[in-house]
Order: sequence, then C-alpha cells, then structure tokens
Amino acid sequence: MSSPDPISPSETPVGSIGVAPEGTVVIAIDAMGGDHGPRVTVPGTAEALKRDGSGRLRFLLHGDEALIAPELAKCPELKAVATIVHTDQSVAMDEKPAQALRRRTTSLFMAISSVKSGAAHAVVSAGNTGALMALSKMILKMITEDLERPPIACSWPNAKGGMGTVLDVGANVTSDANQLIEFAVMGTAFHRAVRGKDKPTVGLLNVGSEDVKGHEEVREAHRILREGVDGINYYGFVEGDDIGKGTVDVVVTDGFTGNIALKTAEGTAKFVKNLFKDALTSSLLSKLGALLAAPALRAMAKTVDPGAANGGPLLGLNGIVVKSHGGAEAWAYSNAVSVAISLAASAYATDIRKALAYVRKAHVASPETPQMADEKVS
Amino acid sequence: MSSPDPISPSETPVGSIGVAPEGTVVIAIDAMGGDHGPRVTVPGTAEALKRDGSGRLRFLLHGDEALIAPELAKCPELKAVATIVHTDQSVAMDEKPAQALRRRTTSLFMAISSVKSGAAHAVVSAGNTGALMALSKMILKMITEDLERPPIACSWPNAKGGMGTVLDVGANVTSDANQLIEFAVMGTAFHRAVRGKDKPTVGLLNVGSEDVKGHEEVREAHRILREGVDGINYYGFVEGDDIGKGTVDVVVTDGFTGNIALKTAEGTAKFVKNLFKDALTSSLLSKLGALLAAPALRAMAKTVDPGAANGGPLLGLNGIVVKSHGGAEAWAYSNAVSVAISLAASAYATDIRKALAYVRKAHVASPETPQMADEKVS
Repeated sequence: MSSPDPISPSETPVGSIGVAPEGTVVIAIDAMGGDHGPRVTVPGTAEALKRDGSGRLRFLLHGDEALIAPELAKCPELKAVATIVHTDQSVAMDEKPAQALRRRTTSLFMAISSVKSGAAHAVVSAGNTGALMALSKMILKMITEDLERPPIACSWPNAKGGMGTVLDVGANVTSDANQLIEFAVMGTAFHRAVRGKDKPTVGLLNVGSEDVKGHEEVREAHRILREGVDGINYYGFVEGDDIGKGTVDVVVTDGFTGNIALKTAEGTAKFVKNLFKDALTSSLLSKLGALLAAPALRAMAKTVDPGAANGGPLLGLNGIVVKSHGGAEAWAYSNAVSVAISLAASAYATDIRKALAYVRKAHVASPETPQMADEKVS
Repeated sequence: MSSPDPISPSETPVGSIGVAPEGTVVIAIDAMGGDHGPRVTVPGTAEALKRDGSGRLRFLLHGDEALIAPELAKCPELKAVATIVHTDQSVAMDEKPAQALRRRTTSLFMAISSVKSGAAHAVVSAGNTGALMALSKMILKMITEDLERPPIACSWPNAKGGMGTVLDVGANVTSDANQLIEFAVMGTAFHRAVRGKDKPTVGLLNVGSEDVKGHEEVREAHRILREGVDGINYYGFVEGDDIGKGTVDVVVTDGFTGNIALKTAEGTAKFVKNLFKDALTSSLLSKLGALLAAPALRAMAKTVDPGAANGGPLLGLNGIVVKSHGGAEAWAYSNAVSVAISLAASAYATDIRKALAYVRKAHVASPETPQMADEKVS
C-alpha cells in the first residue's frame, strides 16, 4: 500500500465543527457514500434517530448541501439535531484507494477526520470499501500494529432468534494465532456493545471440534484461548453449521475463510428463498396458498433480509467506523447507523483499547517465540 | 499417521471373489457401513441398480450374511446380480483410523481390497470417514504423491438447476498452488464422468475477482491456470455466492475453506427452510396456504434435500472410492452408489491418471522452484 505523509489534525478541514458537546453522542455521516447518496443516507439516519429516542444524538452530515438540504427538509426531527458540513467533493464507488487518500476535501475524508478531531464519536459510510479502509487506517491509525487492515465484523442471524457476530469477513487474507486472538478480543467488545450481552461466548471456526483438527494457526490460537485469555468467554472450536445454529455469540476466523463463508451463506439463502418463491408461484393452487400465508411469509422475510444485519464495523482502529452496504436502502442504512450509535454510546472504545493492550502484554507472542510443533492427525 | 506395513494382494482375503468379468461394471458395497447398515445399504443399492438399467452391473456386498441376506431377499433384482462376501467384522463409526488399519477382515477393509484386487471397479461406504480415508490411501495408494490425503469432492445444487462440483471439502487443511491445480484436474475428470459435460468450467474460490486478491497460493494457482493448463477450461476467480449461482461447473479450494463453506451452506439452507416452515405453520390461515401449496413445496424439497447430492468421491487414488453420508437413508444412499457407477462406467479412471501425469510433468513445480513474490494489494 502506498502511504502518503500522515496528515496532522491542523491540515484537516474539520476545525470549524469543533468538538462534540459534553453529554451528546455525535455520529458523522458520509452522506454522499453508497449507490444512492443523500436520498438514502438522510432518511436512513432519521430512522435510526427515531429508534434511539435518547435525546442525546447529534449528526454531522458530510457532503453536498444542495443535495442534502432538500432531503433533510423532509426529516424535521433529524434537521433539529443535524449540521451539514458542506463539500462538493466525494469518493467514487470505483475510485482507487490510493487516489482517495490524496483528496482531503471529500465527504468520506472529512467524515472520518471529524472522528479524529473529536467532533464526532463515530462515522458511518456506505461508500467505497477500499477507500474507507485505507482512509480510516491513515487518519485514525490502528490500535494494534500487526494487522495490515482493520478486520470487519458482520452480524449473522441465527436459529436462536438473535444475531451472532462473525469476524474477520474480508480484510486480512491470512491470520496467525495472535491475530485470531485479537479478533476474539475485538469481537467480544463489539458484541457486548451492540448486542448487550455482558460475556458473549467465542468460538474458533474450524473443520472439526477435536484439538488436533485444522491448520497450525487455529490450533495454536485454540491452545492459548483454552488456557484462558482474560475477558474472553471461550467455547472451543465450532464448524460452519454452528454459525447458523447460534452455538456461540462470536465466531472468529481469518478474513479469507470468513469472507467466503459469508458470501456462500448469502448465496445459499438467496438460492433457497428463490426455490420457495418458485414453488409458491408454480401453480394456481400454490399461488392461492401463498396468498393465504402472505402475512406470515412477510414477517419471516424481514428476519432473513440482509438489511437487518447491515452495518459492519472496521475494528481495531482509534475511532469507530461502520461500513454500510453500498446498495442499502433507508431501512438497511438505518441499521448501520444504529450499530454506530450503540458502539459510540457504550464503553466500547475504552473496552477494546484496554482489552487489546492487556492481551498483547499477556498472551501475544513476539515473532521470535518458537511455534508449537505441527501435530499430525493420527 | 502411523503406517503399518503395506499389505500385498496375496494377504488380502479377496482372492475367492476373483476378477470382475469382462463387460461388467462391479461395485463393492461396504454393506455394514453407516448408521443403519444393511437396512439402508441393500435397498439403496437396489434403487441405484433399477435406475441404471444397463444390465452390466454386478455387486459385491461385503458384510454379515445373516444381516444382509434377509434384506437382499426383499430385492430380487439386486439378488440376481449380487454376491455376498461374508465377514462378521466391521469398523465402528467412532473407531480410530489407526486401529481400523490393522483389522483386515472388516467389511470396509475387504470392500476396498476388492477394488485393489480387480474384483470390483469401485467401492461405496457410508462408514467412518477417517477409516475410509486411511484404508483407501494404504490399500489403493495415491496417484500423486504430494497430497497428504485424497481430496473429497461434493455435489452442490445451484440456481442453474444442475449440480456443481466443489473440492476439496475437508481432507487437506492447507493446499499450495500445485495442489489446487491438481484439484482442478481431478474435479474436471469427476464432473465430466458424473455430470456428462465434456469441458466443465473451473473456478478458483477467492475473496474477489481481481488478480491481486487473495493469498499467495490462490494467486499463484490462478496465474498458472490462466496461462493455460491442458484439459482445464479455466474461468477465473469466483466468490462464495458464485457456488450457489452455478457460475462455474467446478469450484476449486483448499480443504479448510471448502469444508467450512459446505457446512456453512448446509447450516444456512436448514435455517432458511426452518424459517419458511415456521412461517407456514404460524397461523391457521398460513397452514391452509401451506396445504394448498404442498405438492409444489414437496417437489421443491427434493431439490434441496442433501440426499440428492449424496456421494462424495475420494479423488486421486488408484481406484474409485465413494463416501456416502453415515446417516443416509436408502434414496440418498442410492445416489452415492450412482456416483460410483458413473465413475466406474466412464473413462474417469484412465482420464484422471493421464491428466495428472500430464499436469505434473508440464506445470507442477518441484518444491525447489522459487515462489512468485508476494504481491501486496495497493
């Protein structure tokens, strides 16, 4: 990755919006990000505000005032607590991250910078993932140094009727034992903040549950976690089908496997839904049946709507960054904003920093530490 | 893995059943394998025989005559072409592979040995996977030496209405570029034999479609496959959701990722099916709707029934070995037997041997060959 000179806060254009007032929770919105821009980001933010109802929320809407203002006029409750931070620049969905890094007056750059400066507690963007990742890393910096990129966590509906957390789903293509343990720490802090469970259980994704299964990295991480890592409620190895069963709250894996598991599950859910749809429209009789069952089917559809799980945090940064799907509509976008609110309003920021510092001191070996011998399956 | 002395054919107890007669296709059945034994393996085999209708099939049913004979009496068509090879020994579902390797008169050992001796063209077992793998490797040997275990291929229903092939789904937890290319060769030979498509397309599973995506092993395999490997119709990188879409016929990945993708998909399909089921029984009105749509739903259910895809071959061996799910019922078991019949009746055995020899000579580098430099994503 090419790295331009790090920017100093004085160079950023956020001075004018000051520091978040005491007692408020301020969310910076990259209003231009995503396939639909302010048409989705503004009403989506308004919906999240309505759901929160704490009265503490404030929003910084970064982007083109001419496009944001008309949308904001339709959302008077949001308008009362929002400030438009105007810029006519934005990062294109297909823009190279290296180029985005150099353009400091884009809505994305300014939105992230407002977290760095203390004007906002969290930032949400539905924009270019590569640019979001590169800019977040450059502006906010990682808490922990040995990750190339911030891992992304995703929320995954399960048979227990709740949402599990799976990470990393796409940032780091290889992960050693230390990184897997750091993911466990980050996933625990995220799940606690967003799902409100004090001691979420953590499982390590593998091809079987016995100690000897899997490659060296997962077996080494398993050994350390089983011995006990402070603050992690470790369950043990889990398999692919345990994610949907909800066997544990947090599933930890490398970004390669996690990304493929997530996309495979999305593809499978779509495939099965389409088969049902085809079956329910295949004859006059089945169409009538579908009509009678329509209310129940509609209620169910919301459970598996990917929009319900929208809002993947980029973890391990000095600041809260939440990614929304680029194609999200207002309801889905509102869920990403709610994730940012939960993280910003909770003890997450101090939690994750303390836990990572602790785990690094106590458990994360330096590269010189000899690795455990590779056990063979007998 | 502990390795007892290799056995010589003269020591195996299969001499009495001779060599497969000219013009026949002989399938060896481990009749005792699986959760249900002969109660499933015998009628399942009978169903596959009925479906084939070629008149060329013969079966060797390895196991306890006292249990097999009563089941066989109910299947006169099978009885006419089957020979019971009696043994009262069998491998337990939870038996350690190392122990199974030493017991030469089990139904599993004898069934595999009947392929080695030439008495049968293929073997099917629903028994202990670890034991099947260890015994197959010891008795039949691998064609290619640098794989620790035979990769397992699975059949995966897709939105194009057909079955894709995905491998490896669980045997080898790490795979370098050479092994991924060998999987592509094996998957092509399998798909051609079983799905009847002459030049199946092959995709390499990754986290994105650009050349720079993924870890070193997939990028190196991609580079070689893109340059062209004889006999492989290479499409390029595919992502997790492409499996269900049916973007390519054969999806190649390492055994760790493949196993997790498969189990995640199975878990997701079950989760979504259960949500539909719950919705369709949640009220009197929706129950009535489900009743009207029942014929269509039943037809659909067969498409996603895992039994339709039952029958995973252990590839790269000097002999055809097909694994059935341990819990398979007769219909699912019959599908595993059909896979074995397709492989045995086709040019698969010579195909795969020739293709592997060719690819090893032309493309597979020795361990001394320098690896491509690790490209970083910019």
